[in-house]
Amino acid sequence: MKALGIHLLIELTSCNRQKINNLDYLERTMAQAAEVAGATVLKTAFQDFNPQGVSGVVVIAESHLTIHTWPEYGYAAVDIFTCGTKVDPWKAADFLNEHLEAHEIQIRDFRRGIPAENEKHQVEYRSIEHAECGSAHN
Amino acid sequence: MKALGIHLLIELTSCNRQKINNLDYLERTMAQAAEVAGATVLKTAFQDFNPQGVSGVVVIAESHLTIHTWPEYGYAAVDIFTCGTKVDPWKAADFLNEHLEAHEIQIRDFRRGIPAENEKHQVEYRSIEHAECGSAHN
Repeated sequence: MKALGIHLLIELTSCNRQKINNLDYLERTMAQAAEVAGATVLKTAFQDFNPQGVSGVVVIAESHLTIHTWPEYGYAAVDIFTCGTKVDPWKAADFLNEHLEAHEIQIRDFRRGIPAENEKHQVEYRSIEHAECGSAHN
Repeated sequence: MKALGIHLLIELTSCNRQKINNLDYLERTMAQAAEVAGATVLKTAFQDFNPQGVSGVVVIAESHLTIHTWPEYGYAAVDIFTCGTKVDPWKAADFLNEHLEAHEIQIRDFRRGIPAENEKHQVEYRSIEHAECGSAHN
């Protein structure tokens, strides 16, 4: 693969349930995480749900950060996609781990970019089953 | 893992270079892709770059879609994260593949959710190397 970016899929569990249900706190914290990583914040778009849960994205010059929270489980799904030599997505992950007060973190790390010839047409796994969804996110 | 969502990481190559450099077209097409999948669009945030390239996100009630394009390579990085039983992210992937006129598609498919006990503390790979970045995205 001709790598153009790094994408982290992050599961944060046993978080502070108040903090991950607070839109203003999350919007501010996600933007700070981007800055800590060395990224330039361009736009944010956050939405809270009834009865609980928040979704939000931060568009950065170097790609994006997103978060979706299930306060009822103390769980937040974060992803951080960055490109360039100035930005360190792991610093943003560490910052969010600390500021959402997660007790557990799982990070999966992928390269994004143009697949090599032998990787093209590759569809690694095609699932038609659906995942359970919290009440907050339909 | 207690699965709460499905996340597709999609590499689209040999796309139509005009279309993947057109902010209005991408914003409309990404929102349509969400609707084709059965999702409810809540917010969009798109940004174009000089000399080329577009980044954008669509926040849906069921999580998000994002896109980052490198027209100079004919390449678009898309990710689609959905939860719930009503939304089929593969339909959005097919729609984008068609409407960006990609000649090659690679899809990696992951479950998102609360890791099982033996998966906690798992950090699969921690890279400190940086990916090359197109001129459009710093």
